[in-house]
Amino acid sequence: MLVLLGGSGYVGQAMQKRLTARGMKYHSIARAEIDYTNEASLRDYLRSVRPRYVLNAAGYTGRPNVDACEIHQAQCLAGNSVLPGIVRSACEELKIPWGHVSSGCIFTGDSENSSGFRECDTPNFTFRQDNCSFYSGCKALGEEVLAEAERCWIWRLRIPFNHIDSPRNYISKMLNYERLLDATNSLSHLDEFADACIECTEQEYEYGIWNLTNPGAVTTRRVIELAQKHGLSDKEFDFFESEAEFMQTAANTPRSNCVLDSSKAVAAGLSLSHVDDALEKAMKNWVSR
Amino acid sequence: MLVLLGGSGYVGQAMQKRLTARGMKYHSIARAEIDYTNEASLRDYLRSVRPRYVLNAAGYTGRPNVDACEIHQAQCLAGNSVLPGIVRSACEELKIPWGHVSSGCIFTGDSENSSGFRECDTPNFTFRQDNCSFYSGCKALGEEVLAEAERCWIWRLRIPFNHIDSPRNYISKMLNYERLLDATNSLSHLDEFADACIECTEQEYEYGIWNLTNPGAVTTRRVIELAQKHGLSDKEFDFFESEAEFMQTAANTPRSNCVLDSSKAVAAGLSLSHVDDALEKAMKNWVSR
Repeated sequence: MLVLLGGSGYVGQAMQKRLTARGMKYHSIARAEIDYTNEASLRDYLRSVRPRYVLNAAGYTGRPNVDACEIHQAQCLAGNSVLPGIVRSACEELKIPWGHVSSGCIFTGDSENSSGFRECDTPNFTFRQDNCSFYSGCKALGEEVLAEAERCWIWRLRIPFNHIDSPRNYISKMLNYERLLDATNSLSHLDEFADACIECTEQEYEYGIWNLTNPGAVTTRRVIELAQKHGLSDKEFDFFESEAEFMQTAANTPRSNCVLDSSKAVAAGLSLSHVDDALEKAMKNWVSR
Repeated sequence: MLVLLGGSGYVGQAMQKRLTARGMKYHSIARAEIDYTNEASLRDYLRSVRPRYVLNAAGYTGRPNVDACEIHQAQCLAGNSVLPGIVRSACEELKIPWGHVSSGCIFTGDSENSSGFRECDTPNFTFRQDNCSFYSGCKALGEEVLAEAERCWIWRLRIPFNHIDSPRNYISKMLNYERLLDATNSLSHLDEFADACIECTEQEYEYGIWNLTNPGAVTTRRVIELAQKHGLSDKEFDFFESEAEFMQTAANTPRSNCVLDSSKAVAAGLSLSHVDDALEKAMKNWVSR
């Protein structure tokens, strides 16, 4: 049996779906049931059920977008920086392996050799760089809190999408805006991400950081092009002339646009298809709301 | 009636003593009684008792010193960055004025004109500067979380001391070390600080940041000199040759040594004696353990 935290969120729901598809037994615990933000409550619960491992998909993301985290700073810190430390303490005390859903949004741009940031690179879109959104700062602090954590996987997700139209799906988000910022990004196919996390634990992969993005990177223009090719939209999209114009007119806080290198995960045998293939697969099977 | 959070801590106990001395009615609530780290619990409690104002003296400090915060990062973030946001939300919803005990340790060094950092200066010993201890980073985030808070005083304390020997008292701490780092600092006489906080609320001073340090600054050597003059110790003290030597041999994380300008508080009529006088007063009335 395993325990899932944050099962009602966008990532948590995908994990539930994949766990169920694999016929795996799990408990998705709600905060109303067990207040897992309280270390003693979480520890007592874990001691009583003794899961093989814990998946932490809980976190605070802004609605409708990351700008909301600038307003709800305490919640953002509690969910993304403090909670990982609470889960760490409880799991370390009970010697339970666990995985944490982190984010690639703690990076900006590309690595020097243009092949994306690797797990060994120091995050460069953080409070310490003083260039980030409050959300990214909190996610980066969350990874700091897990430095040298025992029996802990850190799984970096980056702009999730799949074939199901949703306000949290990157493809849906892009299609719903009138004007877009053209930027180059790594993405994570949500279901492939969830499967990779489960594989990591089931196959007892090495603990530590794993970039779980689809190999390759795409521009916003390319995503729109593909979406139009697959008939998801016939809208005319307009693009901001520059990031400066985007920041002035549409955003309150800087966005992380970045490329991650997921070759460690691919080399280890995790199934992450090329980002173009993953996007096309999602668009071919698109399910509208 | 007013409500005190963190009443069992070093600052909270001083506040209780001063409130009692003034014959003021207050509730010092313990977390075991009301979990004030939970916004709904705090709000429900405040709604039921309707205090004139709330004093937040709760926070996480490392024991025996700030190095411990490097290990207990999640608790440090929860107590110093998240909690202020929770108190803010609850108090803003109920329109209750409140004061937060912040710290001067979010600064390092002195201002350009050598008269100390003022309330309008941007903290320079923070995650954003990437030069700080985890504790200072968390305290600075706590102030960020309170940016533009309504009906909120932010009171900056800096290295508290008074006449009662205690492991938390700066004078006691200095006397217990064998080797000291000579540095220049502003200090806060704990009882004067507590009185200033109470005055701020009772006299309905302007909301916002208040540096509540004793005017002037002292070197560690000067504190030791005064302590020896007043017969508190006849030990021979040794000084580190440099901050570099101190960092290499005695500390895990950088210390904030800084000078704050408290002229705003003094001009507004708060009783903060010169740091030399405050130290001599404490030493003349010294109560050993």
